[in-house]
Amino acid sequence: MTDTMTAAVLYGARDLRLVDHPRPDLLPGMVRLRPRRVGICGSDLHYYQHGFCGGFVPDRPFVLGHELSAEVVELGVGVATVAVGDRVTVNPARACGFCDDCKGGRPNLCRLTIMLGSASTTPPTDGAFAEFLTVRADQCHRLPEALDDGLGAMMEPFAVALHAVHRAGSVAGRRVLVTGAGTIGLLVAMTARAFGAVPVAVTDVSAERRRLAAELAADVAFDPAQADRPGDGFDVVFEASGARAALRQAFDLVRPGGTIVQIGTLGTEDVPLPANAIMAREISLLGSFRYGNVFGEAIALAAAGRVALGPLITAVLPLADVTPAMDLADDKTHSLKVQMAL
Amino acid sequence: MTDTMTAAVLYGARDLRLVDHPRPDLLPGMVRLRPRRVGICGSDLHYYQHGFCGGFVPDRPFVLGHELSAEVVELGVGVATVAVGDRVTVNPARACGFCDDCKGGRPNLCRLTIMLGSASTTPPTDGAFAEFLTVRADQCHRLPEALDDGLGAMMEPFAVALHAVHRAGSVAGRRVLVTGAGTIGLLVAMTARAFGAVPVAVTDVSAERRRLAAELAADVAFDPAQADRPGDGFDVVFEASGARAALRQAFDLVRPGGTIVQIGTLGTEDVPLPANAIMAREISLLGSFRYGNVFGEAIALAAAGRVALGPLITAVLPLADVTPAMDLADDKTHSLKVQMAL
Amino acid sequence: MTDTMTAAVLYGARDLRLVDHPRPDLLPGMVRLRPRRVGICGSDLHYYQHGFCGGFVPDRPFVLGHELSAEVVELGVGVATVAVGDRVTVNPARACGFCDDCKGGRPNLCRLTIMLGSASTTPPTDGAFAEFLTVRADQCHRLPEALDDGLGAMMEPFAVALHAVHRAGSVAGRRVLVTGAGTIGLLVAMTARAFGAVPVAVTDVSAERRRLAAELAADVAFDPAQADRPGDGFDVVFEASGARAALRQAFDLVRPGGTIVQIGTLGTEDVPLPANAIMAREISLLGSFRYGNVFGEAIALAAAGRVALGPLITAVLPLADVTPAMDLADDKTHSLKVQMAL
Amino acid sequence: MTDTMTAAVLYGARDLRLVDHPRPDLLPGMVRLRPRRVGICGSDLHYYQHGFCGGFVPDRPFVLGHELSAEVVELGVGVATVAVGDRVTVNPARACGFCDDCKGGRPNLCRLTIMLGSASTTPPTDGAFAEFLTVRADQCHRLPEALDDGLGAMMEPFAVALHAVHRAGSVAGRRVLVTGAGTIGLLVAMTARAFGAVPVAVTDVSAERRRLAAELAADVAFDPAQADRPGDGFDVVFEASGARAALRQAFDLVRPGGTIVQIGTLGTEDVPLPANAIMAREISLLGSFRYGNVFGEAIALAAAGRVALGPLITAVLPLADVTPAMDLADDKTHSLKVQMAL
Repeated sequence: MTDTMTAAVLYGARDLRLVDHPRPDLLPGMVRLRPRRVGICGSDLHYYQHGFCGGFVPDRPFVLGHELSAEVVELGVGVATVAVGDRVTVNPARACGFCDDCKGGRPNLCRLTIMLGSASTTPPTDGAFAEFLTVRADQCHRLPEALDDGLGAMMEPFAVALHAVHRAGSVAGRRVLVTGAGTIGLLVAMTARAFGAVPVAVTDVSAERRRLAAELAADVAFDPAQADRPGDGFDVVFEASGARAALRQAFDLVRPGGTIVQIGTLGTEDVPLPANAIMAREISLLGSFRYGNVFGEAIALAAAGRVALGPLITAVLPLADVTPAMDLADDKTHSLKVQMAL
Repeated sequence: MTDTMTAAVLYGARDLRLVDHPRPDLLPGMVRLRPRRVGICGSDLHYYQHGFCGGFVPDRPFVLGHELSAEVVELGVGVATVAVGDRVTVNPARACGFCDDCKGGRPNLCRLTIMLGSASTTPPTDGAFAEFLTVRADQCHRLPEALDDGLGAMMEPFAVALHAVHRAGSVAGRRVLVTGAGTIGLLVAMTARAFGAVPVAVTDVSAERRRLAAELAADVAFDPAQADRPGDGFDVVFEASGARAALRQAFDLVRPGGTIVQIGTLGTEDVPLPANAIMAREISLLGSFRYGNVFGEAIALAAAGRVALGPLITAVLPLADVTPAMDLADDKTHSLKVQMAL
Repeated sequence: MTDTMTAAVLYGARDLRLVDHPRPDLLPGMVRLRPRRVGICGSDLHYYQHGFCGGFVPDRPFVLGHELSAEVVELGVGVATVAVGDRVTVNPARACGFCDDCKGGRPNLCRLTIMLGSASTTPPTDGAFAEFLTVRADQCHRLPEALDDGLGAMMEPFAVALHAVHRAGSVAGRRVLVTGAGTIGLLVAMTARAFGAVPVAVTDVSAERRRLAAELAADVAFDPAQADRPGDGFDVVFEASGARAALRQAFDLVRPGGTIVQIGTLGTEDVPLPANAIMAREISLLGSFRYGNVFGEAIALAAAGRVALGPLITAVLPLADVTPAMDLADDKTHSLKVQMAL
Repeated sequence: MTDTMTAAVLYGARDLRLVDHPRPDLLPGMVRLRPRRVGICGSDLHYYQHGFCGGFVPDRPFVLGHELSAEVVELGVGVATVAVGDRVTVNPARACGFCDDCKGGRPNLCRLTIMLGSASTTPPTDGAFAEFLTVRADQCHRLPEALDDGLGAMMEPFAVALHAVHRAGSVAGRRVLVTGAGTIGLLVAMTARAFGAVPVAVTDVSAERRRLAAELAADVAFDPAQADRPGDGFDVVFEASGARAALRQAFDLVRPGGTIVQIGTLGTEDVPLPANAIMAREISLLGSFRYGNVFGEAIALAAAGRVALGPLITAVLPLADVTPAMDLADDKTHSLKVQMAL
């Protein structure tokens, strides 16, 4: 192999170039992958539009992309858990494995995490919009035949939803509301339904999104302006819109003793919240960040058809079209998940 | 009304008579119900066949039946939560409400429980194979239109399954095995599947029962003699057969760190169990007894179609045929749930 | 007995009169008590100072007081769990026992709760600053000899602390911070320590309160202006001051993945909180309201000396001095718990 | 340094020799330690007496010892979390860090664990009865000044107790029984008490052990032949004796709905257990194996004086006396923990 490869490199805001880029080294314990399908996440879009994402400011150009299916093409020294030719999906968050958070079963809190396609570390870590990437062997999860490349690249956003729903404890038999019917909101609604929540309600300001929610996952979908709580309120509210108003409204819709899970990314400014009601109505407000080791579970659920992720993929483009793909992904009226085929 | 009513009264082993029986008093806080559909439970059958059930030996003739749908026909003083004409299902276990177990959310452990159609108290408490019965108002749960009388009378066995599955914590995304494909085993398998378990496997010695399990709930059904564990084993095993061999085998099929839930009634004799493996493989063995306050949840899940209970009702007979109905219920090859229509 | 009794009746703000007041009826299932020691709670003080408490506005004069030890003097029909002459402490919150919250083990959420000495219902419910009061039998918990009347009347505020600490899950081996060293804050610190928290830190703006905290419960006590977090932060922060700034600061002091429990009463206005950090640092913010059925546990812990509640009682006055006692209770520099002896 | 070191090598049953032994290599990520104090565990004793332990049969001579405090003498490549000269205690179970069990926060279930001083792998892994040993850096936990070398070597058995008590959920405010007052039983009793259990009862057949239990940890200690259950029974029973009769008796002493935790090592033969009562009384029987990442917690609790481990160390001998030390450790009447000083 040559020392370089083709990759979509982000040079700055709205400056994404298909260029020759250094091919990553294959260290012991790592595997080299050739991506086959890579989804565009909201954070990819944010990096593309602004050149940074929240507090993460890259100090050099880098490759985006962390939702992927791929083929294993080479094994580093000591790797025995996957084989060349395996088709895999990837947990893009490489936690250290040895800190207290990792040992405590909460790797998503690991301070040493290296995240694919992210400037959360300095220098940034190259992602999957490229011919090759390398990951630690345990980041790979073999895909069964029931999951094609497109669905394989959906495992990462599905993992976000799985983690969020698990954060709420068991939702089985409980009344659930999801605020926001974007990709993550819909995935959360599907997951809550697959885990026995009843009813599953969804709110969104867009009528089209509400229609989609009702079609794919929700027993009922309504406009937040007309939100009404069932009896005493919802047992669990998942806030997946990132809208401050949605979080505030969650407190009016949740029942006494109920749980609110914050998944959506909010601005860094403080949000006025009814702290006395949290006490007097004994509400639980829980943050949910990324995911733990739920990729095996995601694969099993999707392969068994417990959730139908296919309809969330609204467009697939070749890597050459990465810039128009970003613009398409930004069209919230028509797009849910946009993927690149490599 | 007259002071008596028609009821199927158990006088002793295989001596069940349709006779005039005293009509129960309507005390404050109670409601009078007219049963519409009443299922035959394994314990009803055991009382019928032997005149007693386990340690429960009646000191006088009494009325069996505790799985029912009914119509509210009269309200005691102070009742405001149901109305005359309401169609309801009934939680037959009337816990006291004020002991530590009740206050701790575990009413199934309440030592003062009065159970319909049972000799667990002395004298025994009359049940629902009768024109009328009275229960405390909070034992009634209104049935929505989506649930007909037959399904309404399935809420009690469904509640047994719901409680058992909740005992295991969240089964979402976990590998589940159910041993025994009788009514309770099938309900547990359906519930585990509706709560996100994947895969759901069922074992039964009967090929016909395995066929049914695969049709109704299981991803896979197999003969216990050919049981094979998937990878490291099942995350959760629900023992619903009451067979000692099935419980013993559960330890071979559960993964290290996994959970076994005992639901089936076993004999009173001790069962040899691999106690050292419980320690060295860190297994959890959990008993599950009756149910807590899960009737609202049962109704919501069934009404929303998350579980399809209809196929479990294999025969419906008039109360006059209660004796042949008992014999039919005992035919494990052809019967699952046999119900009386009143 | 005559039909009236002496009671301290609140007629309005700062208008508390020792007058003849109707003696409460003894209904079936109830017991008549003669209070022996009654503590002044922050809510009693608020009613005294303002004539109301939060949204609770009495529509007629009523008797305050809900922290008590008492002697059983008469039994209503059907009471068998206590006897005349028993010395008891009382759970002042009489939940209904039959709603979903009660059956679910969360009686503190029961919408039908009748609270002693409170205008949370209309008309208000008379409390314990009186010669007699009646309560449902299950509200009484027998006091062992190891607990004198003063300690007996501490069981209610101790129950508040127990419930709050249980809300956090297990604090055993975890780093705990309590903000606010008033009676409840100190009780929470003592409880956390008795439950294995290490270290237990306390913040308070008063140097005297910090000294007391360090003496009674805390491994370390510091001024919130000089707060410093240990390593990654505290595993659990209990906000017991009711100060908005303390709740806001809790987010700076809690570790990623940690838990904040809100116990203190805050104003009804919304409090700006770092909602994005709740998500990105996966924080849990949990409200804690009153208590469930923890009085037996409170008695066992106090009687065994696991917590030393005596030093929190800073003054005991006769009922005739109820008005000066209120003023004394308001002196935060010198008073923790002020009790009335009856 | 030379290539060999002095070590106590087990050649077979009762054949323990102080010999020259190969010095372990220092691989990247590892640290070289010089042990200072090493305790004798029951498994060390079993290896010494029989040449094997349970199913673990060594295929070559090896060094025992896995309860230790030590000094860091050399760092492997890439180690930054400890420094030469640090005084540490060691988690002797090196889990892989990357399997599902490790990522799920249950490293004690990791199938790839390498255990110091154990034949659980083939070849066996050398332990700490030696001049030097090497461990992975994250196995080391720095000791504060409050913990001397003897107490530092107690962290491993204390970790066993901590894990077992955590397995039961919160024991705060709960009635706890510990069966067996050996080192582990006493540690469990101390831990349960430090975590708020009340009362803490201990059973042992030896009057001397009962006296010790009452002195160090228990509110009450009694002979199992005279065991009596308090009221409804104990909330939690920890079986720490390894006696089959003790496990069987636990079912008679635990309350309905209660929990039994099996810690003691039992023979491999099945033990007859009341499986029907597990169901009908809804008992939880939980195995507890080794420990997770509780060493930091163990250090914090011991250093803060929440438990007093010193009295459990009944003898300290030089390494030259390792054989008599084994015999002393076997004297259950006079010995609890016997340690070697190096």
